[in-house]
Amino acid sequence: MKRRDFVKTLGAGSLVAGTAVVGAPAVHAQTKVQWKMVTTWPKNFPGLGTGANFLAQLITEMSGGRIEVKVYGAGELVPAFEIFDAVSKGTAEMGHGAAYYWKGKSEAAQFFAAVPFGLTAQEMNGWLYHGGGMELWNEVYAPFGLVPGAAGNTGVQMGGWFNKQINSVDDLKGLKMRIPGLGGEVLARAGGTPVSLPGGEIFQALTSGAIDATEWVGPYNDLAFGLYKAAKHYYYPGWHEPGTTLECFVNKAALEALPKDLQAVVTNAIKVANQDMLADFTARNNQALQTLVNEHKVDLRPFPDEVLKKLKDLSDEVVAEVAAKDPVSKKVYDSFVKFRDEAVAWHNVSERAYLNARML
Amino acid sequence: MKRRDFVKTLGAGSLVAGTAVVGAPAVHAQTKVQWKMVTTWPKNFPGLGTGANFLAQLITEMSGGRIEVKVYGAGELVPAFEIFDAVSKGTAEMGHGAAYYWKGKSEAAQFFAAVPFGLTAQEMNGWLYHGGGMELWNEVYAPFGLVPGAAGNTGVQMGGWFNKQINSVDDLKGLKMRIPGLGGEVLARAGGTPVSLPGGEIFQALTSGAIDATEWVGPYNDLAFGLYKAAKHYYYPGWHEPGTTLECFVNKAALEALPKDLQAVVTNAIKVANQDMLADFTARNNQALQTLVNEHKVDLRPFPDEVLKKLKDLSDEVVAEVAAKDPVSKKVYDSFVKFRDEAVAWHNVSERAYLNARML
Repeated sequence: MKRRDFVKTLGAGSLVAGTAVVGAPAVHAQTKVQWKMVTTWPKNFPGLGTGANFLAQLITEMSGGRIEVKVYGAGELVPAFEIFDAVSKGTAEMGHGAAYYWKGKSEAAQFFAAVPFGLTAQEMNGWLYHGGGMELWNEVYAPFGLVPGAAGNTGVQMGGWFNKQINSVDDLKGLKMRIPGLGGEVLARAGGTPVSLPGGEIFQALTSGAIDATEWVGPYNDLAFGLYKAAKHYYYPGWHEPGTTLECFVNKAALEALPKDLQAVVTNAIKVANQDMLADFTARNNQALQTLVNEHKVDLRPFPDEVLKKLKDLSDEVVAEVAAKDPVSKKVYDSFVKFRDEAVAWHNVSERAYLNARML
Repeated sequence: MKRRDFVKTLGAGSLVAGTAVVGAPAVHAQTKVQWKMVTTWPKNFPGLGTGANFLAQLITEMSGGRIEVKVYGAGELVPAFEIFDAVSKGTAEMGHGAAYYWKGKSEAAQFFAAVPFGLTAQEMNGWLYHGGGMELWNEVYAPFGLVPGAAGNTGVQMGGWFNKQINSVDDLKGLKMRIPGLGGEVLARAGGTPVSLPGGEIFQALTSGAIDATEWVGPYNDLAFGLYKAAKHYYYPGWHEPGTTLECFVNKAALEALPKDLQAVVTNAIKVANQDMLADFTARNNQALQTLVNEHKVDLRPFPDEVLKKLKDLSDEVVAEVAAKDPVSKKVYDSFVKFRDEAVAWHNVSERAYLNARML
């Protein structure tokens, strides 16, 4: 990467002297930087693409226009799954996606997005910011010249849309379900057939019977996709993605070329975006669930306990196998599992106990 | 407030011309501002006082030193419960506390801190940032010339330390418990005697038998206070404070005197601090609970369902009465309760269902 590709220098001389603080334009910048943010999402995609837009705008605001960030939807500058390489090489300065997309680069990356029966959003933030998680994530991305950050969270997702009832473990056998990643591997071990399909093809596959079921995100995104028209039953909870963390990674050289205050603006804007997206999903899922249940009369169903127990056992197996693949994955797994076990104990007497008490 | 009290102007002339971006000092500021943050916490108090310190430092970093914030513990500049007035008058530019302390200013303020059987941390953020809550909070503080922000969260607190077992609603009768605010009012209606005591006097009161029970925060703070040495039973969950939001309010005139980019730095640093404190509490409560249970052999107990049901009914009564006090409180109550009811439905199939599935 050449510095002139991303640093554009303005002439000096616009400094306003004296005491004119009130109403003065932000004229303290001697440098104006134009950055590109490439994303794995269609431009303006609800929650995820809009979260990337929010982040870009926030960086501009906090930097007083010293950094302008242009957001590119998937395929606009580079294809969705090439953003990691693009930012690594400096074609763009920032990338917005989800870490499980990069397991081909490092198996350990998956722990920073979503793990079946893993951490909730609140727990992920606890692990990342105060439990050693961010240090490990930095270690995993460092060989690629990338600085990662958590940049959003969906909260607990839904289990998915099914055209077959799931009343026992046996009902998973032969089930053709669109479910990617580790969740898909768990389904395969339960006798199902995980199918990989891009978002745009799900609706058709479900209505034609090419697949029996699909997971997607949660009420907000699922309502927008019209999935309630394509399947009979809406199952919960999303055991496979209990608090999916989105990410924004930054080209390390580009970040370090900034003055210290702008480095802090960029890394902290990512943190603001992380919190804001979860709040956005929480508020919008609330509303969308009302619409699905009250207007569209969706059949909302819990997975039977027996099924969840089986999926949990298989998840533990599958996740432990990721840890066995290389020493870095083992190190991340050990940290993740220790934090999860402690969080299970603590949230058993706090978040979980309270949410149950509220339903009495 | 006089502007010269908080705005200190540096001479111009330090602008560095040209392309020297890498390694250049942050010399773009023509203005240097020194702010005071007064707090309701003892200086460096774990979680809360340290959260205020974190916020002050973050503002300095992101502003490249253009804003320096000096943090004052309770009583250092003004007494704890005078910080609201102090920032309103401009004696200090920022205040760090919890909104339920200001119910004497506006009853509605209580909804922005903690409500018995109210919102969890994740739900509070959903309501505040994307459910209309922040707009209402701004409306409530506007008459005082203050701009509020959520600046931290403890997560679900613990029910408290008890020297008497609570096996039925009858066991609450005559119970002398240190529990302030709306939770205390609920206890009173259940036949108990709520006692108001500053933190520093709790340990002694509990060991002497002057009180039978106390709530405090959660494992992290309770361990530091040594409360396990003063009481036999540790009850959960903290129905009275299910996700206490801390606050940072800013003197509106001081904020608006800043250039736009610094205004964005201040308001967004508060958001970063909001998320960071919850992550800090999550990680530290995890560890402290292990210590309390494994090393100190604390007797951890759930409140019986019957007791929680009664407390919930009484809480609904008490909170509805706050709404009846004035039109602004009614408006905030209506928004809060609508959001809570939707969040109960959504989290019943997401966060709650998942946390239960993980325990199978």
